[in-house]
Amino acid sequence: MASSVTGPEIERLIQLLARLPGLGPRSARRAALHLIKKREALMAPLTGALQTAMDRIQVCKTCGNIDTTDPCTICTDPRRDPAIIVVVADVADLWALERANAINGLYHVLGATLSPLDGIGPDDLAIDSLVSRAHQAQVKEVVLALNATVDGQTTAHYITDLLQDADVKVTRMAHGVPVGGELDYLDEGTLSAAMRQRTLF
Amino acid sequence: MASSVTGPEIERLIQLLARLPGLGPRSARRAALHLIKKREALMAPLTGALQTAMDRIQVCKTCGNIDTTDPCTICTDPRRDPAIIVVVADVADLWALERANAINGLYHVLGATLSPLDGIGPDDLAIDSLVSRAHQAQVKEVVLALNATVDGQTTAHYITDLLQDADVKVTRMAHGVPVGGELDYLDEGTLSAAMRQRTLF
Repeated sequence: MASSVTGPEIERLIQLLARLPGLGPRSARRAALHLIKKREALMAPLTGALQTAMDRIQVCKTCGNIDTTDPCTICTDPRRDPAIIVVVADVADLWALERANAINGLYHVLGATLSPLDGIGPDDLAIDSLVSRAHQAQVKEVVLALNATVDGQTTAHYITDLLQDADVKVTRMAHGVPVGGELDYLDEGTLSAAMRQRTLF
Repeated sequence: MASSVTGPEIERLIQLLARLPGLGPRSARRAALHLIKKREALMAPLTGALQTAMDRIQVCKTCGNIDTTDPCTICTDPRRDPAIIVVVADVADLWALERANAINGLYHVLGATLSPLDGIGPDDLAIDSLVSRAHQAQVKEVVLALNATVDGQTTAHYITDLLQDADVKVTRMAHGVPVGGELDYLDEGTLSAAMRQRTLF
C-alpha cells in the first residue's frame, strides 16, 4: 500500500537510508520526508556531497586511510614523525585518534581485527603490508592502538609475534581510568591496571 | 584537525548527514564511513536515488501529498471515495494512515497545525484550499485526522468553524485504548473516552 502511495522512487530512497547505521525503517522514513521538504537547503547539497565523495574519495594504498588523495594527507605530511606507525583496526579509530590529537605519527589501518568466530583470519587484514613497513629503516616504533577486547588483544599478540624480527619497539596504549570516569563504575581489570600504572601527580 | 585529515569533502558529507533527523554528529560520522566503505553497494545507489528524487518528486497542488506526479497517485485513483476528505497536519501522517490502510478517501495536507507559541497562524496552513474543496458537490465528509494535542485540537476546532457553511459532515478519529495498549499505563482522559465510546463485543 505504502509503495503505491509514495511511489517507488521515495520507497527506494527510504530503503537505502534505512541501511545507514543509526537509522531504522521508521527514522529512514522521517529522514526521507525531511530531505524532500528541505529540497534546496539539504537534499540538493547532500546529493552533491555524495556525488563528490563518489568521484574523489579513495583508499590510501600505503596506510589504508580514506582520503581524496593517494597517498593520503597524513602519509604525505612532512610534519608527521615517520618513526612511529600507529596500527588501528578501522578508519573510524584513526579519525578518533586524530580528533583527540593523540599522536603525531603515521597510521596503518588493518581493516578489522582477528576474529575466529566471525571467520576473520590474518589474510583478511592488512598485516603483510604492516610487516613490510615495519622493516623500513626509519620506523622505530609500532603502536598497537587496538580495542581492549579479546579480538583486539588477540590481534595485538599476533602482530607482536610477527614483528619480532623487525628492529622496532612494539607498544600499546595505556589502560586506566577514563578522563571524567567514576571509579565506582569501572571494572576490576581497569582499576587494577590503572593502579599498577599509576603516575606522579 | 579532523577536517585536515579526512578532507573537506568528507567533512561536508558528515555535516549534511548530521542534519537528518535521527542522526547526530557521531552517528553521521559512522554513516559517512559506512557509505564510503560500501561505495558500490550503498553510496552509489543512494546518490542515484537522491538525484532521482530531486528530479521527480513534487508536491500535489490538490492535496499537498508528495509524489512523482501532480495531481498525486491518490488524487487520481478512481477507487478512492471522493466524498471523503481526510485532513492531516503532515505528509508523514498521510503515510501512516495509508500504511494502516485506515480509510479509502482523499487527503488534504495542512502542512502544520495552528501554534500561537511557534507563530504558526491560519495563513501558514493550507486552509483556504481545504474550505474550497469542502464546498465541492461530491464531498460529504471531512475527517479531521489531527494529533490529539492542544495544537491539533485547536486546529480542528478552527477548521470546524470555517466549514459550518459547507454541506459536509465534520468528523474526527475516535479516542480509545491503543491496540496492544495496557490500561494501567493510559492517562485518565483516554480511559474515560474509551469507556464513553465503548462498543459491542
